[in-house]
Amino acid sequence: MNIEKLAELFKKFPGIGPRQARRFAYFVISKNNDYIESLMSAINVARKSVKRCDQCFRLFEIKKSEKTCDICSDSKRDRSILMIVAKDIDLENVEKSRAFNGQYFVLGGPLPILEKEPEKFMRINEMLTRVEQLLNEGILNEIILALNANTEGENTALYLENKLSIFKDIHKLKISRLGRGLSTGTELEYSDSDTLNYALRNRF
Amino acid sequence: MNIEKLAELFKKFPGIGPRQARRFAYFVISKNNDYIESLMSAINVARKSVKRCDQCFRLFEIKKSEKTCDICSDSKRDRSILMIVAKDIDLENVEKSRAFNGQYFVLGGPLPILEKEPEKFMRINEMLTRVEQLLNEGILNEIILALNANTEGENTALYLENKLSIFKDIHKLKISRLGRGLSTGTELEYSDSDTLNYALRNRF
Amino acid sequence: MNIEKLAELFKKFPGIGPRQARRFAYFVISKNNDYIESLMSAINVARKSVKRCDQCFRLFEIKKSEKTCDICSDSKRDRSILMIVAKDIDLENVEKSRAFNGQYFVLGGPLPILEKEPEKFMRINEMLTRVEQLLNEGILNEIILALNANTEGENTALYLENKLSIFKDIHKLKISRLGRGLSTGTELEYSDSDTLNYALRNRF
Amino acid sequence: MNIEKLAELFKKFPGIGPRQARRFAYFVISKNNDYIESLMSAINVARKSVKRCDQCFRLFEIKKSEKTCDICSDSKRDRSILMIVAKDIDLENVEKSRAFNGQYFVLGGPLPILEKEPEKFMRINEMLTRVEQLLNEGILNEIILALNANTEGENTALYLENKLSIFKDIHKLKISRLGRGLSTGTELEYSDSDTLNYALRNRF
Repeated sequence: MNIEKLAELFKKFPGIGPRQARRFAYFVISKNNDYIESLMSAINVARKSVKRCDQCFRLFEIKKSEKTCDICSDSKRDRSILMIVAKDIDLENVEKSRAFNGQYFVLGGPLPILEKEPEKFMRINEMLTRVEQLLNEGILNEIILALNANTEGENTALYLENKLSIFKDIHKLKISRLGRGLSTGTELEYSDSDTLNYALRNRF
Repeated sequence: MNIEKLAELFKKFPGIGPRQARRFAYFVISKNNDYIESLMSAINVARKSVKRCDQCFRLFEIKKSEKTCDICSDSKRDRSILMIVAKDIDLENVEKSRAFNGQYFVLGGPLPILEKEPEKFMRINEMLTRVEQLLNEGILNEIILALNANTEGENTALYLENKLSIFKDIHKLKISRLGRGLSTGTELEYSDSDTLNYALRNRF
Repeated sequence: MNIEKLAELFKKFPGIGPRQARRFAYFVISKNNDYIESLMSAINVARKSVKRCDQCFRLFEIKKSEKTCDICSDSKRDRSILMIVAKDIDLENVEKSRAFNGQYFVLGGPLPILEKEPEKFMRINEMLTRVEQLLNEGILNEIILALNANTEGENTALYLENKLSIFKDIHKLKISRLGRGLSTGTELEYSDSDTLNYALRNRF
Repeated sequence: MNIEKLAELFKKFPGIGPRQARRFAYFVISKNNDYIESLMSAINVARKSVKRCDQCFRLFEIKKSEKTCDICSDSKRDRSILMIVAKDIDLENVEKSRAFNGQYFVLGGPLPILEKEPEKFMRINEMLTRVEQLLNEGILNEIILALNANTEGENTALYLENKLSIFKDIHKLKISRLGRGLSTGTELEYSDSDTLNYALRNRF
């Protein structure tokens, strides 16, 4: 039963089904003490040293005892533009692309369709607070809703647009979305109408 | 040997390997006369009634004995803009999306990387002739290179841009490409740098 | 419409969906006359020169005007054992393995579950006639039901066992099936109970 | 860096690549204390309560302080037959099939091709000791090498046959392998020669 209990907990890992959860259980039982101690220590160290930034809410590694991440506290980054993403891993991938030099906000997850309690899935109030902070600085003029190009992402974007609409008129804030079109690898033969329409509108 | 010969010919069908070619051979041998006669007659009828348009070079079904397809001879379509595609099936998919109301030209295929005889893969001279025809009408002001967002499509676009550069200065012709960005279904977490860069540039 | 009609006929090819059928239609329309004439001629030649053997009902290439295939008329092959297969391609694969030197009978297809008219799917009467012929020679002592190891194959085997049961007692005919166990590539971790049970029973 | 270190350790989990390892790192950092404490406690409990049996070397859950697993100490199980498997998960799947009621030995892994130090991958000495123990009881008469039907499994079986050959003559011990043939789902059309040969030999 102890193997089952352990497998049950591994099933909560992202993308892990019952079979692989069971293999994980066998794996951690079979491994030597050194590995298991390293793993547990690494989890504890990471959980202590990695905190959510009090401004963008991304996970970052604390050096001393700072509460704000290196992106938010970097004076060279553009404070006139804020990108809202669903997850840490989205932010990480945008950073890797070096395509963006502004501020971020990590919502914590996309909004499932027909969800009645969005606050359970996303840091809405924290987001509104952060937008107000930046607006008070008097520099912010655009928010990019950087969400996945699927129905959940669309749902999230519509919800956020509604939430952010109050700032639009008062502060002349622009609310934009990521450009649509052919992504790398897309073939015309297999493209859907939406993608082709955007690709034609955004031709360059 | 006759089965082998037949399978050999079916291997040339698009996307068909030796195993399926063999199944096709057995299939046409086993089928009743009615089906085979229908198939051969349909091939002959289609080959006779379907011709390449003398302007855009797409395949179309002749009604009387016209040489120009219904798109090229449709007076309601915009003659100021020409979309160049690699294949008939690309044109068909763009038409289905209803995103475009201009003229087309079907090249006949993308240009393989490092290919030394592009004319073998694409109707270059026919394309140049068609562009000149449209320029002589005095209305054409943009050519869209509508190619797949992969290395072969990129290679083809570069080759065409070079070929068309002569018209750019003389006629103030704009040469554009399809917009890049998130295509339907794209997730930020898995997007490459190119796609993210374009998505940020084309935000809306 | 002629393209559609042609695509409709290609959709009947084994394993071909609407999209690929359409590509096939474009393909045969675009190809040069030489290829199309070769293809049609190869189909006609194959259909004329390839006949079903009057004993095993496999397709084979006629050399002169013989009605019996080279396997059935080969005096070196064992006439005491008959393998019943569903399709020509099954027979072909068994021959390639060189594992069997007896006689064959090609049924024409497996029996779908709950099918009420088995004769429409399989040459039952021809099979019974062939079995009687071989029994009259006085040598036949085993029939192998060589069917796929899936529910349809199982269904077919049960049906055939019933049909052949009349010969079992009169002629002391053995009715067998192909051995079950680990097939090449099978991993223990992913094997179902049936396979493991057979593998244990057939250990060697 | 602490995230990287943690991801590095998750990369050792079976079947986990760098991307998923990183997601796991984010996952354990983001989860609440309750979950992490449950996970760590479950790992510790499982590692303490799950031991390798001193006879078959499978992992099993200790009830009191026994050293021998419930299978090895079950007097109803047949002691005349020993099945050697590569991994715990293989044993588990054979047990689930209820096809076998004898003794087991878990080697610890298959032998990679061309490996020069087999002892690093498999408990060879422990296996030989276990076989001698059972032989001394005077009941053991067969060892089944139950390995995957792939090249690594074949390699392991050959190695074990050689190692066990000393017992064959002295004790009239039978060394067998799992039966080969069609496994559930196998289609004749796609079967390799080995599988067909075995299927014919093992027909029933």
